[in-house]
Amino acid sequence: MNLDALYSELTLKTKAKLVMVVLDGLGDIATREQNYLTPLEAATTPNLDAIAKDSAQGRMIPAAPGITPGSGPGHLGLFGYDPLEFQVGRGVIEALGLGMDLRPGDVCARANFATLDAKGIVTDRRAGRIPTETCERLVGLLAAKIKKIGDTEILIRAGKEHRFVVVFRGKGLEGPLTDADPNREGFPVPAVQARDENSAGQKKMAGLIADFYKAALPVLAGEKPANGFLMRGIAHQPHIPLFEDRYKLRPACLAVYPMYKGLAQLVGMKKMEGPQTISAQFERYLAEHDQYDFFFIHYKYTDKAGEDGNFAAKKKAIEDFDAALPILLRKKPDVLVVTGDHSTPCSLRGHSWHPQPVLLHSKASGSDKLERFTETGANLGSLGVFESRFLMRLMQANALMFDKFGA
Amino acid sequence: MNLDALYSELTLKTKAKLVMVVLDGLGDIATREQNYLTPLEAATTPNLDAIAKDSAQGRMIPAAPGITPGSGPGHLGLFGYDPLEFQVGRGVIEALGLGMDLRPGDVCARANFATLDAKGIVTDRRAGRIPTETCERLVGLLAAKIKKIGDTEILIRAGKEHRFVVVFRGKGLEGPLTDADPNREGFPVPAVQARDENSAGQKKMAGLIADFYKAALPVLAGEKPANGFLMRGIAHQPHIPLFEDRYKLRPACLAVYPMYKGLAQLVGMKKMEGPQTISAQFERYLAEHDQYDFFFIHYKYTDKAGEDGNFAAKKKAIEDFDAALPILLRKKPDVLVVTGDHSTPCSLRGHSWHPQPVLLHSKASGSDKLERFTETGANLGSLGVFESRFLMRLMQANALMFDKFGA
Repeated sequence: MNLDALYSELTLKTKAKLVMVVLDGLGDIATREQNYLTPLEAATTPNLDAIAKDSAQGRMIPAAPGITPGSGPGHLGLFGYDPLEFQVGRGVIEALGLGMDLRPGDVCARANFATLDAKGIVTDRRAGRIPTETCERLVGLLAAKIKKIGDTEILIRAGKEHRFVVVFRGKGLEGPLTDADPNREGFPVPAVQARDENSAGQKKMAGLIADFYKAALPVLAGEKPANGFLMRGIAHQPHIPLFEDRYKLRPACLAVYPMYKGLAQLVGMKKMEGPQTISAQFERYLAEHDQYDFFFIHYKYTDKAGEDGNFAAKKKAIEDFDAALPILLRKKPDVLVVTGDHSTPCSLRGHSWHPQPVLLHSKASGSDKLERFTETGANLGSLGVFESRFLMRLMQANALMFDKFGA
Repeated sequence: MNLDALYSELTLKTKAKLVMVVLDGLGDIATREQNYLTPLEAATTPNLDAIAKDSAQGRMIPAAPGITPGSGPGHLGLFGYDPLEFQVGRGVIEALGLGMDLRPGDVCARANFATLDAKGIVTDRRAGRIPTETCERLVGLLAAKIKKIGDTEILIRAGKEHRFVVVFRGKGLEGPLTDADPNREGFPVPAVQARDENSAGQKKMAGLIADFYKAALPVLAGEKPANGFLMRGIAHQPHIPLFEDRYKLRPACLAVYPMYKGLAQLVGMKKMEGPQTISAQFERYLAEHDQYDFFFIHYKYTDKAGEDGNFAAKKKAIEDFDAALPILLRKKPDVLVVTGDHSTPCSLRGHSWHPQPVLLHSKASGSDKLERFTETGANLGSLGVFESRFLMRLMQANALMFDKFGA
């Protein structure tokens, strides 16, 4: 029997409140250089400590052993979707990251300004990393000139430096396509192609990209060095079963950064706009407590510090979160999870594959008799090492949302 | 390659003796209220302790993460069958629980006496929970009147209060069917239907249920309040590969309660009748030692105490088991497993999804250097957290029953 179908069949509607706090990139590794402590272990976290003893702990594999996920797969896993089954194109992720309000059927492409020579050969794939202001000016020119191609609406948004995003909103469009990118200098920009020759939507989309190039290149012709561009990750939004249908929980997203709001929106969570700090996010949770059943609360600064290789900043980010935690606990949810979407070890200065620690606190979680929440402690916990796509199911179980399976 | 086929191909016939002692609902959770001890941790278990240091430990997921299993899926997992693949209908489980001797092809339905008004509307789905004696009298009336429908034999057995079971034994019968139950008062009893429109066996069975209603309702017409009945979980026994063929082990079942004997019988274990206490079960094991290779020994009282929320009784049940253990150890099996079919935490007063602890003792198990067998210790064990359907394979491995895979 299909496991998702079984979970659905057993799901009961309850009044439980569930909260998942995601400290982005929380997981880390202990190294000699940091006296064998991770930032979570080095941090002073009296409020987390106070609930740790009455919690279960474990570690989660974000996608598959050894796989380092981006934010897309990392969060889809946390939301209970197999990130290998539900893949979100990079264009979509970029568009979400820029705060674009995508609709079902939109096809998104991430794009780079690039330098072309007289023969159309790519001589610099990043156009000398032009300043963001230049990018914004060029995108303004393109957007003013190209609003529609046939019946398809074109939305263009500038990103950082040479990066921008193009969204195609029309009927019968589909991805994925091959990239309009030679992947190295010295070659012309290849025409994109349908990945599936039998997909009419992909073929229509390939034609639109060609038309977009025809319309856009003349606009950039006099520019230096950004007289051309590359397009990659051309794909539509995946068809993802809605969170509320899947879990019988009304979901709300409390995130500050657009990317995470976008990912939550992909699965149908309601975005709460406004709060800019973790304290404000927790305050907003208190205010919205009765209107929703599930709250996804995203905190970015652990990941940022990890990417910078800044151990002290990561430790501080954890301590700041901990200091705000009592606000959340004023209306203690029935099930509280604190975890990351992946690890971002300071010593690696980037995302990694190391299973992230997870703490699950509920009346039914039992105690793993651990005095703190740490990577090393989580290794000893009753949840073991498991794939993050099961976290939602464990949260539902702890909310007593599942009927018994079989007699 | 199919994993079961690989296991079969590698299986060697040996003279090893394997014993699986199932303390039903053994697993529990540590809570503040019980000073952070589980019943297993609070119990005095000198005999278990004596083998713990020379054992491997771990925790088992009975069906899937977060899923709370009934006894059926719980035991099928222990016997090495994926409980999601081999599902046992509720009618079958009820019939087994009442000690009915099922045969392959039998279709079973669990039934409730109910109250109908003059128009056939269900006014009480449980007929006011009539006493068991009334149920037995009514079942006697039905059984006397309805022995056959066409070429199909009808077996009816009373359960507790308003519950009874009907078994249809004939040719070409199949389930599952939809329920003859409106699931709430105020509606008539719906006619059952084949779940698969293309199944001739299900269609024949749906006709038999209709005929059974026609024959049975007149018998109950003058009764108050039990003048009608509902039928649910109508299904046949699943086709399960026989235990002996699958593992090359001659299996014996030493259980006291009919349900567990029935589940063992489903996979072809030989039921040993007689012993009513764990000491007597262990004595019987000694007597039967040479006739069988695998012994499933079931102990119910841990689950009972857990369902009652009675911590002291669960602790005592574990201590009683431990006190009897030396009898078993007089003929120490080559592989001894002590585990549960699922957890039944006292604080939840029912089955749960928490992985149950498992202890595996053999000359090849190695030592996890744990002084006792407990949930918290099992978190640290070398077996890790795994699905219970692999336990049989680990037992076989420890019995040195598997040839090497590949060169």
